[in-house]
Formats: sequence, C-alpha cells, structure tokens
Amino acid sequence: MSTLRVVQWGLGAMGSGMARLVASKEGMQLVGGIDTRPEYVGRPLGEVLGIDADLGVDVTDDPASVLDPEKVDCVVIATTSWVKEQIGDLRTILEAGINCVSIAEEMASPEAQSPEIAEELDELAKKNGVSIIGTGVNPGLSMDTLVVALTAGCLEVTSIEATRVNDLSPYGPTVMRTQGVGLSEEEFRKGVEDGTVDGHIGFPESARMISDALGLGIDRIEQKREPIVSTVKRETEHITIEPGMVAGCKQTLLGYRGDEVVLTLVHPQQVLPELEGQGTGDYITIHGTPEVSMQINPEYAGGKATQAIAVNVVPRVVEASPGLKNMLDVPMTGALMGPSAYTRRV
Amino acid sequence: MSTLRVVQWGLGAMGSGMARLVASKEGMQLVGGIDTRPEYVGRPLGEVLGIDADLGVDVTDDPASVLDPEKVDCVVIATTSWVKEQIGDLRTILEAGINCVSIAEEMASPEAQSPEIAEELDELAKKNGVSIIGTGVNPGLSMDTLVVALTAGCLEVTSIEATRVNDLSPYGPTVMRTQGVGLSEEEFRKGVEDGTVDGHIGFPESARMISDALGLGIDRIEQKREPIVSTVKRETEHITIEPGMVAGCKQTLLGYRGDEVVLTLVHPQQVLPELEGQGTGDYITIHGTPEVSMQINPEYAGGKATQAIAVNVVPRVVEASPGLKNMLDVPMTGALMGPSAYTRRV
Repeated sequence: MSTLRVVQWGLGAMGSGMARLVASKEGMQLVGGIDTRPEYVGRPLGEVLGIDADLGVDVTDDPASVLDPEKVDCVVIATTSWVKEQIGDLRTILEAGINCVSIAEEMASPEAQSPEIAEELDELAKKNGVSIIGTGVNPGLSMDTLVVALTAGCLEVTSIEATRVNDLSPYGPTVMRTQGVGLSEEEFRKGVEDGTVDGHIGFPESARMISDALGLGIDRIEQKREPIVSTVKRETEHITIEPGMVAGCKQTLLGYRGDEVVLTLVHPQQVLPELEGQGTGDYITIHGTPEVSMQINPEYAGGKATQAIAVNVVPRVVEASPGLKNMLDVPMTGALMGPSAYTRRV
Repeated sequence: MSTLRVVQWGLGAMGSGMARLVASKEGMQLVGGIDTRPEYVGRPLGEVLGIDADLGVDVTDDPASVLDPEKVDCVVIATTSWVKEQIGDLRTILEAGINCVSIAEEMASPEAQSPEIAEELDELAKKNGVSIIGTGVNPGLSMDTLVVALTAGCLEVTSIEATRVNDLSPYGPTVMRTQGVGLSEEEFRKGVEDGTVDGHIGFPESARMISDALGLGIDRIEQKREPIVSTVKRETEHITIEPGMVAGCKQTLLGYRGDEVVLTLVHPQQVLPELEGQGTGDYITIHGTPEVSMQINPEYAGGKATQAIAVNVVPRVVEASPGLKNMLDVPMTGALMGPSAYTRRV
C-alpha cells in the first residue's frame, strides 16, 4: 500500500474533524487544507486543526496552489449541502485530475435532483481519469446503503420502511433554525413554504440510491415536512421549548412505483425526544421474503459518522474506475484500522 | 441489460431453491441443472424443480455437457460446505471459462483455512478471465458483511462482538446430528473431539473477511464448541429433548491481535431457545467511536437468505474483474427486483 495523500477542502466543524482523522490514519497523509476564512488563511494547517503535528503546509484560499495530481490522490470537500453551490469547486477538482469525496448531501446521488449535473460530473471525471463520490451518514449509510445491505438475503422485496429518530440537542443555532426548532406551528409551516425551514436534505438521494440498487422502479416521490409540536417543556443549552412550540421537523418521503408505495422514509429530528418517551434509533423494515426488521439504538451518531465515512471511503474512490459513483457502486466501506483495509481485490 | 444465463450445480434443498429463484427472476435465465441423483438425471429440469415452466433442458450428471462459456454466464454451486470437497468441481467451472458463485461456507474466504487453494482459484480464475465468489447468509452476510458495513461511519474500532441466536426446529436429522442435538453432554464432547459434531462452519472465514476488510490485524483465532444443556423439555417434529440433554451447540470464536481480543463471534444454535426465554436474533456491537449497537429480530432467516444472496450476487460476480473475490470485494449486493439492479457504475 502506498500512502494516500489527501487535501481537505472546507475547514468548518465537519471538515476540520475529517482533516484531523486523515492526519491520524496510518496509510494517509494530510497534504493540504483549503478554506476562505481570513482567520485561517496563511496559518499552519496543524495549528488551525489544533493538532501537534507539523504538517508542513499552511491553509490556503487558492485551490490551484495545492491541487497538483502528482502530489494529491484525493480531495475531501465539506462546504455545503447543495450540488448547485458546490459544482464550481467540483469542476476545479476533477479538471485538476484528482479524485473527490463530497459530503454535500445532494452529491450522494446527484441524479436524483440534478441529472444534468450528474452527467456532467460523470463525463468530467471520466475525461480526467478520476472518480467522485458523495457520502455521509445520511444520506450515504443509515437510510440507504444499510437498507440495501439488509435486502441482500431476500428472495423478494415488496416494500421498505426506514425511520431515523435522532436528538438535535447537541447542535447550535443554524440547525435549530433550519429544523424550525422553537417556532410556533404557524411560523413553522410558513418557514417550510418560504424555504427557511429546510428539514433534512437527502431523502430524494436516498430513495434514488435504493431504487437504482434494487431495481425497485420508483417513478415518483412525495416529501412532507411537518412540525413536531411539543406537549412538554424541553430545555437544552441552546434553546427552551415551551409546550405547544415546535421541537423539531418530522420529514417523510413516500416512493411510488405506479400507485403503490414501495418505500417510506421517516426522519423526525427534534430536541430531547425521550422527554415524550421516544427513544432515538435507526429502524429498517424490509417487507418481503424473508421479512427483516433491524434496529440500531441509539441512532448511528450523526456528525462523527459523516466525518468517518468520508475518510473511510477515500481508498474506494481512489481505486474505483473513472466516473461518478455512489456508495453502492463501490465495495462496502468499513473503518480503516490497518494496512489491509486500504487494498481490495477489485 | 442482457439476460444472465445461469446453471445450477447441485439440486438439493438449497440448490433447487436457488434454481427456482433464478427461473423466477426477470433478467435471468436458468439454462442448466447438474446433479448426480439417479432419480433426477435425464428428467426435465422444470419438472424436477416442481415449476410449470418448460425450461427446455434436462438435469444432467455430465457437467461438460452444459458448461459452454458461449451459453452460460455463471454457475451457482451448492454441493458441500468444504472447499477441499468442492475444489475439483470449481476447477471444472473455472477451466470452462465460466463465472462461479459457491455457497460452500469455506468459500466465503478460502484464504482462512486453505490459502494454497485460494491462490490456485485466484490464478485459475484470472487465467480464464472469470471470477469466483463464496457467499451465504452466514458466512457471507449476517456475521461479516453486515459487521463491516456497520463500521463504515466509525472514526475508530477497538473491538467487535457479533452474536447470532437461531432456532434449529425446522431442520431435519442431519442438522440435529451435526449440531449434537439430543445427545448427552458427554456424547456431545466426544462428538466434538471425533468430528461428528461440527457445529457452525464458517467462523474462521467470517473472521478473516472482517479482519482483512478493516485491517484489524487478527493474527490468531480460537474456536470453542460447547453443549447447550437444556433445563426444560423441548419437543419438535423431529426430536424430543429431556432436561439435562443437549439442545444445541454454542460456538464461539475469539480473534486476537497479539494478546488482545478484537473480535468475538458467538453462535448458539439450538431447538426452541424461547423455551428458556432466549429470543432469536442477530446482534452486532461495534466498540469504538461512535459505539454502534444493532439487532435484527428474529434472526436473518437462514436457508432462504442463503438461497437469495447466492442468486442476488450473480450480476456482481459476472461484472467483477477476474479472480477470487469475497462479499467485501464487490459492490454491496441487494435483492434483484428489476432491471437497474443488474447494472452498476463499476
């Protein structure tokens, strides 16, 4: 195994966690950090990350200065949830002839909402002999890749339900705002309409991944964002929810094949669900032969897992054939704990 | 997608189930059946399988008569649990230039116990431009592939425990005998010594798959087979267990890295565990960051799931690069429910 040389693009909470993980992994080397924050640019990358190691590079806001395909095997980019906001940077990476992992939720399966961008990325990657993949805990693992894995031993699948119940308490003001936490029911519904309450980004992408991987034939999806109105007082470090106020957003996707619902994804995100007796967890039910009913309690941890899977998939995207991939196009990714994890018999 | 043409080798309980599944799948065609049972040879394959379709072929005991690489994409073989018993037939398939799926438990990772055979199969497959894979529900899915999938979002993995609790009640005399059901404790221990009580076949293979995929560095394994002595009367269609008699076999594997146990696999197989308050299920715990605790209740159904996964993996082995593969070398397999499931962006 030769060492994989990685550049981290975006040094926010997620990106800096990923960069620290790359720096800590046997078999990987963190060779660059790109960010536009004035307080980071020009400072030693190790210092910005708060790690002891002298990495020998400074944070730069000029991607061209570090994107040398002779010196970099992969860029991991953590800058936004949306493909249309990231496409310029993705073009820069692929045109430089470097493989790419993105944690933009929509990149888990850009075909879902931006088929023309997916086609462009696939062509651009192939033209430059590299590959690009989108991943994260959700979309990317808990409500799509794991769902497909659980069908591997099914003679038949008639329909699928996946539910992810999590607790937003650890998150700060941005997440509270985009999930509508602390709003009145009316403000919440207005927020959904005007786009200020986003809810979860990634359901169309998970549905597309599952449908493509199984041949489920989903031809139409419906999404709903509903307020979770609290019946009790919920108090966190960042916010206090009085009874009658919104504690979070319950997002639902229905995937239809013709008139039949073959996929149901449910993701209630709220602060302190256990105060109303709801435990956190990932729940997947495969209806078919055999029936399969899985749960993970508590839920597969959000932020850390996204950082981890983005780094764990780096060897897969480096060794993949050129083009746009998703998590179900490459061999299953596990945690990278030693040399043999970096090589596959592909 | 072009139709995948499959020959089923071995038409016992598992093999005939797999053949029926192939015959039922859109995108697959069952083009041959190989078996040595005199009561099957020469009879129409559809009739032997008890399906209405006229498949246009008779069961044959002469593999050479059907193994034409111009007419067959993949052979699925279900004849034995042991690599050394199957190696002659595997050579025949690979030398004919045809891809192969085997449900022999030891074929899930033949490197584990027969490294020289693994090397031979890899070379033979490459020489003939085809690939070969071993699979099944266990080994192949519930105690290895799913374990690795659950680590995908881990920053770090320190150790892993996987337990599979199942009920042997549906099985007949052969399984009862090889699991030691109905013996006295002394007879059981003697049976383990003289090899008549096999227990579960596949733990060294699962351990090897996990260790290789994660780079866990397991350098030594220990296996134990212990009697499950019943404290209550357990009665099935096939057998009656009095209190004090053996109701099944509890098999344990410890995987060491140096002096440290990094993997524990536990598989108590018995009749009617619920009579002593034990529910059936698959339980996986990943110790690390984050901790992940998963359960599937009841356990992922044994026989049907092995039939299903062997057929579901056919497109993966057909499209794989030449050589010996395991379930973690190819993109994750899901149930094949429609055309898009047969093609990947590999």
